[in-house]
Amino acid sequence: MAQDSIRQMALNARKAGLLLNALSNDRRNQALLAMGESIERNLPQIIAANKRDLQNAERANLNAPMLSRLRFDENKAARVIAGLAALATLPDPLGHVQYANELADGLRLYRVSCPIGVIGVIFESRPDALVQISSLCLKSGNAVLLKGGREAIETNQALFQAIAEGTAKAGLPDGWCHLLQSREDVASMLQQDDAIDLIIPRGSNSFVHHIMKTSSIPVLGHSEGICHVYVDQAADVAQAVNITVDSKAQNLSVCNAAETLLVHREIAPIFLPAVAQALRDKGIVLRGCPETRKFINCEAATEDDWHTEYLDAILSIKVVADIDEGISHINTYGSRHTDAILSQDAASIERFMTFVDSADVFANCSTRFADGFMYGFGAEVGIATGKIHARGPMGLEGLCTYKYKLYGQGHTMEALNAGAFMLTHRSIPDVDGV
Amino acid sequence: MAQDSIRQMALNARKAGLLLNALSNDRRNQALLAMGESIERNLPQIIAANKRDLQNAERANLNAPMLSRLRFDENKAARVIAGLAALATLPDPLGHVQYANELADGLRLYRVSCPIGVIGVIFESRPDALVQISSLCLKSGNAVLLKGGREAIETNQALFQAIAEGTAKAGLPDGWCHLLQSREDVASMLQQDDAIDLIIPRGSNSFVHHIMKTSSIPVLGHSEGICHVYVDQAADVAQAVNITVDSKAQNLSVCNAAETLLVHREIAPIFLPAVAQALRDKGIVLRGCPETRKFINCEAATEDDWHTEYLDAILSIKVVADIDEGISHINTYGSRHTDAILSQDAASIERFMTFVDSADVFANCSTRFADGFMYGFGAEVGIATGKIHARGPMGLEGLCTYKYKLYGQGHTMEALNAGAFMLTHRSIPDVDGV
Repeated sequence: MAQDSIRQMALNARKAGLLLNALSNDRRNQALLAMGESIERNLPQIIAANKRDLQNAERANLNAPMLSRLRFDENKAARVIAGLAALATLPDPLGHVQYANELADGLRLYRVSCPIGVIGVIFESRPDALVQISSLCLKSGNAVLLKGGREAIETNQALFQAIAEGTAKAGLPDGWCHLLQSREDVASMLQQDDAIDLIIPRGSNSFVHHIMKTSSIPVLGHSEGICHVYVDQAADVAQAVNITVDSKAQNLSVCNAAETLLVHREIAPIFLPAVAQALRDKGIVLRGCPETRKFINCEAATEDDWHTEYLDAILSIKVVADIDEGISHINTYGSRHTDAILSQDAASIERFMTFVDSADVFANCSTRFADGFMYGFGAEVGIATGKIHARGPMGLEGLCTYKYKLYGQGHTMEALNAGAFMLTHRSIPDVDGV
Repeated sequence: MAQDSIRQMALNARKAGLLLNALSNDRRNQALLAMGESIERNLPQIIAANKRDLQNAERANLNAPMLSRLRFDENKAARVIAGLAALATLPDPLGHVQYANELADGLRLYRVSCPIGVIGVIFESRPDALVQISSLCLKSGNAVLLKGGREAIETNQALFQAIAEGTAKAGLPDGWCHLLQSREDVASMLQQDDAIDLIIPRGSNSFVHHIMKTSSIPVLGHSEGICHVYVDQAADVAQAVNITVDSKAQNLSVCNAAETLLVHREIAPIFLPAVAQALRDKGIVLRGCPETRKFINCEAATEDDWHTEYLDAILSIKVVADIDEGISHINTYGSRHTDAILSQDAASIERFMTFVDSADVFANCSTRFADGFMYGFGAEVGIATGKIHARGPMGLEGLCTYKYKLYGQGHTMEALNAGAFMLTHRSIPDVDGV
């Protein structure tokens, strides 16, 4: 697409976004259901398109996990459609009064949640992500520009058509959702800083970083998880073995899986042999620091290992002198995603929770719990790895901002200064929806 | 300063920030008071430094408002010191439990407010801003890199010394606050994306934009206010004249002053002559669209006027066919700061409040009320003109983020999947401070 057409898309999305913001929750929920019906109706074409993507991917020798992520069949469609119905039942994220204060007699201030406006999302080669992201944007009243992985290009096009058709029938404003095709489209999108309010890139650290460097639009990065498990001196060994194995091996290819194990040197002689055996039983390859290799046989870890998100059956292990060396390692090499301490000592736990500078800090449980559904949000946009706006597992709230609405009866600053009225700053109780 | 030393500053600030985050509210408040005492003790040197800045500014022919902003005398010092004492009495923004949920038996999740970490602030030539910003960062547990206007360089240096001395005595970690000297320093700072979490630039739209384009660190812009007053068909004319005059003329040089007046054409024949007289009595020069000039004598407005924040005794005026043309003008030319509708019609007010895409949308009161102190926040960092993280008048909350703390008792995903325990998602009532 030419740069002009991306500009036009963004401007159309801006217009549509302003209209979406005024639609009732019922109307948005009806559109979510219509989206699901349209996917159901268009399923033969979508699956045919997916077969073409899969054939191309096989010709390009994509590996089995990639092919499995790319596949969009009846089962995945059913899950996606059920997800849309579930999203429609979640509470409206818009119109919440977050702060209500009577500044003076008859001068009432309300801070009310509202959509951000127009969001550009760049996501990986999972076609179901297209449905998930566009539906989350719709539920939160945002217009959206979507760019999926190029391996899924035909499936994405077919899904996008179905979504556009379904939501048009449900009366959504034209242009609320757009699909981009190429890297050049993304480059153009990143320049539309007057028409797009937020970019959400999902992918590797270096990809997210590239987007941040390229765009002057605010970016909410969803990048990799270099997650740590720190086993304290005061850990329960059997429990620590269990949690370490779960954090690493329960699912290898997710961002909340552990990549590095840090072990207090006082517990290393007992813990390391036990955990090594349990991890090897799950097929995990170990790479250890010199100290680690005094207690177990394994490959030598290099500096690179501490920086690496394997997403694979590999775990790096380092023995540390004390909890502070563990915390410092995490703050140096981690990606501020999720890190856990395993300890029965309350003071150590609090020290870890305070000083580890990550979105999710866990005590005595698996890193795998870092997830929006687990947290009770009902829906998840992803896991934000920055500190601004939204941090960690991000629900619908992360797709909203707020505005201040101030209602007066002729109030002026001149009159306030002249003593004609006084500031009272009385909290207004129990308001929801203005 | 060499780029190396800015790098070192940022890394020192990162270390200090992690320590600050663990200081109690009492310790932070004591440091705020120590800051005030040290400014008091060092006042002769600070005022002498300010005299040198003022002499240089006079030689450079700075205008009177600029000189007045630059001046730092006993009166300003007294106000600044009182401000520090007031800040110390505000509630702690840290450690608030924003969400507490028992995910399963014995698996408790808390979302707790915490400092962002390291913040870089670039601010205008008002030396009191240096004290204000550093104290807000301290209260919220953040380390800070400061860059003030170059006209205030000597005063800033003297104030910074006093702050560093006072807070060191109060036991704050070394390196929690740094002062940058030059534009090159700023350029280096913008590259430290692994050590600085947020940049807050205060200044013109183009300046804020430049920072956003240059840095890959998240930016919270505090840029200009192109604020509008829209006078609806159903306005009370006398009240509308009052509010328009207050919004424009009560203080010319502030970002929440009105720059453009939009008038519904049905009310223009009555309203325009009345408001023109009242504005001229205050010395305001008017620039009107062709339609406006049918009702009052004034200069012709050009396209440029709609884009301009005058910060001066000038007001541009446009007659619009209906409320939607008014809203559309604001969304096209405004800076998403503060815009007011003057109307006695509830439906028009709601339409305006919903569709104007600004941080502050007001009905029947002066735009001058867009202010953190007015809003009851006790302190103001500035007025954020973006939509992400913090929007509109920004209090201490805007300098905070949150982290998720999850406390378990050996919980693993494997056990959950095996049915060994179940998700319960029970809200944990009435927690504050974990």
